[in-house]
Amino acid sequence: MAETGAAARAVDQDRLWQRHVEMARTGATPRGGVNRQALSAEDAAARNLLAGWAQRRGFSVSTDSIGNLFVRRAGSDPTASPVLSGSHMDSQPTGGRFDGMYGVLAAFEALEALEDAGITTRRPIEAVAWTNEEGSRFQPGAMGSGVFAGQYPLADMLQVKDWKGVALGDALAETLRAAPAPARSGCGFGLAGYVEAHIEQGPRLENERRTIGVVTGIQGSRRYIVEIEGEEAHAGTTPRAARKDCFAAATRIAAAMYAATTDADDTLRFTIGRVEVGPGSPNTVPGRTSFTIDMRHPSDETLDRAERELGAIVAGHAAPCTAVIRRIVAVAPTAFDPTVIDLVRGTAAKLQLSNMDMPSGAGHDAMHIARLCPTGMIFVPCERGISHNEIENAAPADLAAGTRVLVEVLAHLANR
Amino acid sequence: MAETGAAARAVDQDRLWQRHVEMARTGATPRGGVNRQALSAEDAAARNLLAGWAQRRGFSVSTDSIGNLFVRRAGSDPTASPVLSGSHMDSQPTGGRFDGMYGVLAAFEALEALEDAGITTRRPIEAVAWTNEEGSRFQPGAMGSGVFAGQYPLADMLQVKDWKGVALGDALAETLRAAPAPARSGCGFGLAGYVEAHIEQGPRLENERRTIGVVTGIQGSRRYIVEIEGEEAHAGTTPRAARKDCFAAATRIAAAMYAATTDADDTLRFTIGRVEVGPGSPNTVPGRTSFTIDMRHPSDETLDRAERELGAIVAGHAAPCTAVIRRIVAVAPTAFDPTVIDLVRGTAAKLQLSNMDMPSGAGHDAMHIARLCPTGMIFVPCERGISHNEIENAAPADLAAGTRVLVEVLAHLANR
Repeated sequence: MAETGAAARAVDQDRLWQRHVEMARTGATPRGGVNRQALSAEDAAARNLLAGWAQRRGFSVSTDSIGNLFVRRAGSDPTASPVLSGSHMDSQPTGGRFDGMYGVLAAFEALEALEDAGITTRRPIEAVAWTNEEGSRFQPGAMGSGVFAGQYPLADMLQVKDWKGVALGDALAETLRAAPAPARSGCGFGLAGYVEAHIEQGPRLENERRTIGVVTGIQGSRRYIVEIEGEEAHAGTTPRAARKDCFAAATRIAAAMYAATTDADDTLRFTIGRVEVGPGSPNTVPGRTSFTIDMRHPSDETLDRAERELGAIVAGHAAPCTAVIRRIVAVAPTAFDPTVIDLVRGTAAKLQLSNMDMPSGAGHDAMHIARLCPTGMIFVPCERGISHNEIENAAPADLAAGTRVLVEVLAHLANR
Repeated sequence: MAETGAAARAVDQDRLWQRHVEMARTGATPRGGVNRQALSAEDAAARNLLAGWAQRRGFSVSTDSIGNLFVRRAGSDPTASPVLSGSHMDSQPTGGRFDGMYGVLAAFEALEALEDAGITTRRPIEAVAWTNEEGSRFQPGAMGSGVFAGQYPLADMLQVKDWKGVALGDALAETLRAAPAPARSGCGFGLAGYVEAHIEQGPRLENERRTIGVVTGIQGSRRYIVEIEGEEAHAGTTPRAARKDCFAAATRIAAAMYAATTDADDTLRFTIGRVEVGPGSPNTVPGRTSFTIDMRHPSDETLDRAERELGAIVAGHAAPCTAVIRRIVAVAPTAFDPTVIDLVRGTAAKLQLSNMDMPSGAGHDAMHIARLCPTGMIFVPCERGISHNEIENAAPADLAAGTRVLVEVLAHLANR
């Protein structure tokens, strides 16, 4: 076993950065971001790029039944279960260059650094790109890792449709035709550990001038749809008293929800992200409105309480329209493995990288994999905490620093 | 000149109703309404249907430069300017069978009734179908009559684009290829009078159990767009204090606007009809929102005051986002000609039809034509006052009653 630091020293900051630059060309947007939605042509292009790099380094590539893509560096013990590291390559419709992609490229850089340093591990280490983490095209998000972990039935997920009515199974088949890879039968296999590197997607590391976030867990998250039905009417003739204006009702409901979710310590995350108002004619009183709610908090009890309040608001503020709220997704808070947390913190300290413990505000594939094996995450700063935005940015030195911690942690876990 | 009542008695309720049934097949929707937007294939089909009926009765057909369609029954004096009557055949995307179409078919029924009764008028009488009254596809609405009256420059209107980027001039050319009619050069000609029949699109006639609305004028109307810019951010990680959530800002702005436009006598009409929220991802804090405002009142001073309040609300409630409000259309209130108003009221009384004076809540083509010649309107009830809705409905007997008043008024004006 190599001394601590040998693998870290082999991490190549420039190579890692150039890989980000190349990946950012797939789905590049005019404003400098990426639009690489799950199982799109851009997703296929990114898969081909990664697989090509892997093959040139002699790493084997495989894909499971939900399209998760694995790059494997063999270990010395062919019977040992692998240690896994990665994230996702799909993006929001107007997403950035680092969200998800960093975790995939950091894991791949870790494999290359071990290779370059001539370090052998007992267990294989695999880099993974999970399918459809973002959930912007197909819901729920974190789908590939969720299927891998047995949280979502594969058959159900293959039938999920996007907003245009395309079934995920069809999009997946088309993606794998465009980016073929040897099939790994089924979904899920034994793991010795999972570590995911990711940009923080929040401002805390930057504000506190720390390089490494030692992630202790992931807050719980819930998704809802509110549907309000009113009555279409002529905008010029219908008196206010005779209207069933569903956008006016939506405004009352949304305003009450924003007020109810304003907690003193600014921990509850409440977002209305997608809003549809029909029929969408300027001179017709709208007859139907729907909107999505994304709500997150580290405490499931807080989420339960907030959910009850949202239900009461919908019931109390809809009249004279009618409204319903439906829960689409609920993901419980995740606590990461204490030994992995300690290992990340200890490695950062040994590498003399400033660090702090923190929970993750965003959901990540790690929340599903944490049910299978000892799991942790490593955060690095992103500029102004901005993410899910084309101007998302991160510093090459920070990306490399996170990868140095990652490779040391992976090598340690792969020798346990 | 025929005695009062001869033309009215020749109005054929069943024929008029059957023409509505036939017209409702062009653009029919599953829920019983119509989607016959301006200069669409469905609009062309309606034009062909009307022109075919006209030709079978020996009436001449013509189209002017903005696509207004005229059906002319000659008078005895070939030098006399015509009396005009009609409305529009285009509909809202989810519109009803009577809005606009009734006025066109009532005018056409009036020509047929005069023909059947063998009544000759000194002046010609023309039925007109104005182009693009609804304004849901191309803005502004009441465009054909506005161009006819010199309110909107023809060249500008031909360049207006729909939401898909199609220029009105191109859509018009395609419509006239599909529904050819002899060209009437230019736009606008001398008129001796204009009377438009229309469903009320409000509940007053039904509530007061009257058959005929003697329309005294049209309230003023204004159209605005509000655009709010925030910043896209991750829904799970971005603290509320760090967000520039433009839908939250839109909610505050809209709520304040609904409150500010709540007048004690329920006369001001305020509608937010079209709302766009981008990028439209459930787990991204929205970065841009826009919505339309349609505001109407019989008093221009009230509209001016409300407009100032809307501006102050946008300025005061946008932070931390930025927002602007732009006025797109302003149409001043219209007062109809007192002699035409008296003629409508007197004719209704002679025909023993219950009636009441009322302003129009909706804008109509008559507001533009009132600038050219003595103008009036005749309203008939519509079920529950519902319009701009697929369930819009009216009683055959009421439609015929309005047409009886119309034909008598037109015959009177055509003999002045």
